[in-house]
Amino acid sequence: MTAYSELMDKIKEIDLIEQINGLLGWDQEVMMPPKAASLRAEQMAWLSSSGHSKMTDSRIGDLLITLENDQKLNEIERGNVRLIRNSYDKAIKLPTDFIIEISKHRSKAMVTWTEARSKDDFSIFRDDLKKMIDLVRLEADYLGYEELRYDALLDNYESGLTVSRLDPLFKNLRENVAPLIKMVIKNGIRPNMDWVDKNNWKIPGQESLSQKVSESIGFDFAAGRRDASTHPFCGGPNPDDVRWTTRYSDTDPFGSLYGSMHETGHGLYEQGRPRELDFQPAGKANGLGIHESQSRLWENQVGRSEAFCEWSLPLWKKYFPDNMKGVSAKDLWRSVNLIEPSLIRVEADEATYNLHIMIRYEIEKMLISGDIEVDDLPKVWNEMYDEFLGISAPNNALGVLQDVHWSMGAFGYFPTYTLGNLYSAQLLNAARKELGDIEAQIRNGNFSPLLNWMRDKVHSRGSILEPALLIEEATGSLPSSDEFVDYLREKINDLYDL
Amino acid sequence: MTAYSELMDKIKEIDLIEQINGLLGWDQEVMMPPKAASLRAEQMAWLSSSGHSKMTDSRIGDLLITLENDQKLNEIERGNVRLIRNSYDKAIKLPTDFIIEISKHRSKAMVTWTEARSKDDFSIFRDDLKKMIDLVRLEADYLGYEELRYDALLDNYESGLTVSRLDPLFKNLRENVAPLIKMVIKNGIRPNMDWVDKNNWKIPGQESLSQKVSESIGFDFAAGRRDASTHPFCGGPNPDDVRWTTRYSDTDPFGSLYGSMHETGHGLYEQGRPRELDFQPAGKANGLGIHESQSRLWENQVGRSEAFCEWSLPLWKKYFPDNMKGVSAKDLWRSVNLIEPSLIRVEADEATYNLHIMIRYEIEKMLISGDIEVDDLPKVWNEMYDEFLGISAPNNALGVLQDVHWSMGAFGYFPTYTLGNLYSAQLLNAARKELGDIEAQIRNGNFSPLLNWMRDKVHSRGSILEPALLIEEATGSLPSSDEFVDYLREKINDLYDL
Repeated sequence: MTAYSELMDKIKEIDLIEQINGLLGWDQEVMMPPKAASLRAEQMAWLSSSGHSKMTDSRIGDLLITLENDQKLNEIERGNVRLIRNSYDKAIKLPTDFIIEISKHRSKAMVTWTEARSKDDFSIFRDDLKKMIDLVRLEADYLGYEELRYDALLDNYESGLTVSRLDPLFKNLRENVAPLIKMVIKNGIRPNMDWVDKNNWKIPGQESLSQKVSESIGFDFAAGRRDASTHPFCGGPNPDDVRWTTRYSDTDPFGSLYGSMHETGHGLYEQGRPRELDFQPAGKANGLGIHESQSRLWENQVGRSEAFCEWSLPLWKKYFPDNMKGVSAKDLWRSVNLIEPSLIRVEADEATYNLHIMIRYEIEKMLISGDIEVDDLPKVWNEMYDEFLGISAPNNALGVLQDVHWSMGAFGYFPTYTLGNLYSAQLLNAARKELGDIEAQIRNGNFSPLLNWMRDKVHSRGSILEPALLIEEATGSLPSSDEFVDYLREKINDLYDL
Repeated sequence: MTAYSELMDKIKEIDLIEQINGLLGWDQEVMMPPKAASLRAEQMAWLSSSGHSKMTDSRIGDLLITLENDQKLNEIERGNVRLIRNSYDKAIKLPTDFIIEISKHRSKAMVTWTEARSKDDFSIFRDDLKKMIDLVRLEADYLGYEELRYDALLDNYESGLTVSRLDPLFKNLRENVAPLIKMVIKNGIRPNMDWVDKNNWKIPGQESLSQKVSESIGFDFAAGRRDASTHPFCGGPNPDDVRWTTRYSDTDPFGSLYGSMHETGHGLYEQGRPRELDFQPAGKANGLGIHESQSRLWENQVGRSEAFCEWSLPLWKKYFPDNMKGVSAKDLWRSVNLIEPSLIRVEADEATYNLHIMIRYEIEKMLISGDIEVDDLPKVWNEMYDEFLGISAPNNALGVLQDVHWSMGAFGYFPTYTLGNLYSAQLLNAARKELGDIEAQIRNGNFSPLLNWMRDKVHSRGSILEPALLIEEATGSLPSSDEFVDYLREKINDLYDL
């Protein structure tokens, strides 16, 4: 057996453990009865600790050294070696005691965060958040970094991501998107939302619409499922078994459909992974930024386009004949693109969304570097919302307490949401150069050229390249926010006749 | 750490693996999309092989020897040591090559059996069945036995079960139940099934009835689920997460309800396990015979009693107001107790069911001993059906090919179905002595005295004792078929005024 095949056998076992953990995680959110939580935690902890002990096997370190000195590896083999080195180093750099401590603290902090948010009392969460900040600072120090401590955390969610890459992207958004939004507000035009707000939207109709749209885009339900859950997500063990969820409200039909398109986008990426690289890191999806580019593409660039509204209007009318009486494709398009500053990130529109992220990014940078501390958070949060979105939260529940991420210690995660938006604009432009009139294809319900382009340029390339290099390979340019800003400017001009 | 606690730590890990495999197995039958089958098999194979390698750890053998010489162990500790010895010996007696071979052959034989049954062509399955018989004979030889080779296989499904224990039980059934059935046929009375056959039974009504009955009996849906699947079963990972299924047909309302009561019975047993013995073999359900006693108790002794029909009639009328017009509790009772010889085991009534099992038991004895060979099967099968049930199958699909068990190598499994029926009659009689008028309790929907008695005498005793000794402890008598024969004779007299 060669060093390479020995290494890949070890990695296959770790991958199977992750697949199983993926299924258990899905089941926990979607199917598990409430009393099962504590034994489920034991099952998942056993899987994680088995995976961790296999990943820290010193034989993997030896094999990596051998292979890093092997000049004959091909592109995929080099990709695998790079990715395994990354995981191995991360696994051995974090002491087992630390992993146990932060994972226990995660469970505790999620409980106090939930309570703090529901009671709108920051002080309930304050001590656990402070400790979590200390722990992630420590985590960053264990992992190591070249320039900034925050870089070590960013790298957890997109390989190679740094502040020096992100700062110019966010600067551009701040300087160009914030004024666009101010223009919309000043303009004063607001789409007519009466037909949406004044109707009751029956759940079975929403389910049929979600299912039909997801199938039409190309999701393979013989290799996946649609279910309902409190927090929509896309999970499951592997490309043959991709499971996404959405949620339904009878007062809002857009949440379930656009949630479905978002998660379908994630699901399509998973289903499109290169199957000859099953069980290999190079065959996996390439980090959270690229993943989000696929979900945002179908949710926003496609799903909120006028062409898509024209194609989907007959479906809307089929499933909601009474509610949709007299509603035109243009009405639908304007309503699904309502732009207005709001307090809650997950409900934000395409334009304001990235300012929510930018605020969190700036705050995280300052928190991790130590420029601000936990007690500064509510004040800094409110000042930034006032400055960039022109609104302020009446309380902390609608402000600094709204997101779960910090209670989980997931600092460095938020920026990948915005990266996804930027990448999706770049990818769509690149696809358009090859595919021609994508809008006409969408208007006819012909989604396969766009999907096939993504399969070819993104999905099938797995994680062979670093994410930024994959974007460059697919689009001809390194990550940039210019194309997203152009896309948004044009869309807002169309919507508001500015 | 003492030897005992060291052993229990090792066993806990194996138990967690089994819990996870239990969840994956449930998901496979109920949720998994079709394309996921092959990677699911890899996940489950990895779990099984991890469990097997942990179970064959020679340190477990050393610890067992130490503990078997320890005079200070209490009843539970002795139970655990006995059960772990049993599992350890079985695990080390079967060579890894053999385990791989039989498990691969199982997958292959299940495919050819499915094809043979659907095409009604025994020859398609013949070679794989022959090989499977050879493999289970070999398995029995590896495992070892005192009297008969078949004993080694019986012990896989109920600890301590042997032909010398089973023969007298089946002899009694053959001599007493077969004539009862002949009397019913001769008598010629058949309940009016028109109200059942001529109605359409809407699935949502059946679902509500299943749910309501299961809740009323005592199943805790905060620690379990009800779903639909092709083959009803009760599974899931642990007592906090017990998942049973049923299946619905719009032409037959009894299949779903009695399937639900059957699986609820299994589920109640799982939910009633002694929680202070979590992760310990002594805390688990005590083999298939006792398990089946719990499912059969609620399905038949309770569910097909006149008292239960009186209690449940208002529910039937609530969920099927039109279909149930003019149907009395007595009509319902007679219809759910239709007794007539039929070809298919899983559709057989309470009286004829055990003759189906007896036939399979006699055939398995002869097959495993070598008294008959694979090519004798169709002929022997048909002769026995003719002799004991007075019917003959028009083809092998409705005859010798009907059950999946032999394709899985599960020889020795069938007898536990009948043991369950016998045990349930013994247990119900013993409970009656303490609880008084159980029928009156059932008529009032007061199921908790009976459930609590089972909790106390059976569920909470886990596997501390051998199954036969548990029956003796709970009922005062060793396993016997007398009480079941009496129960059946009395019921048939009531139903047919013989």
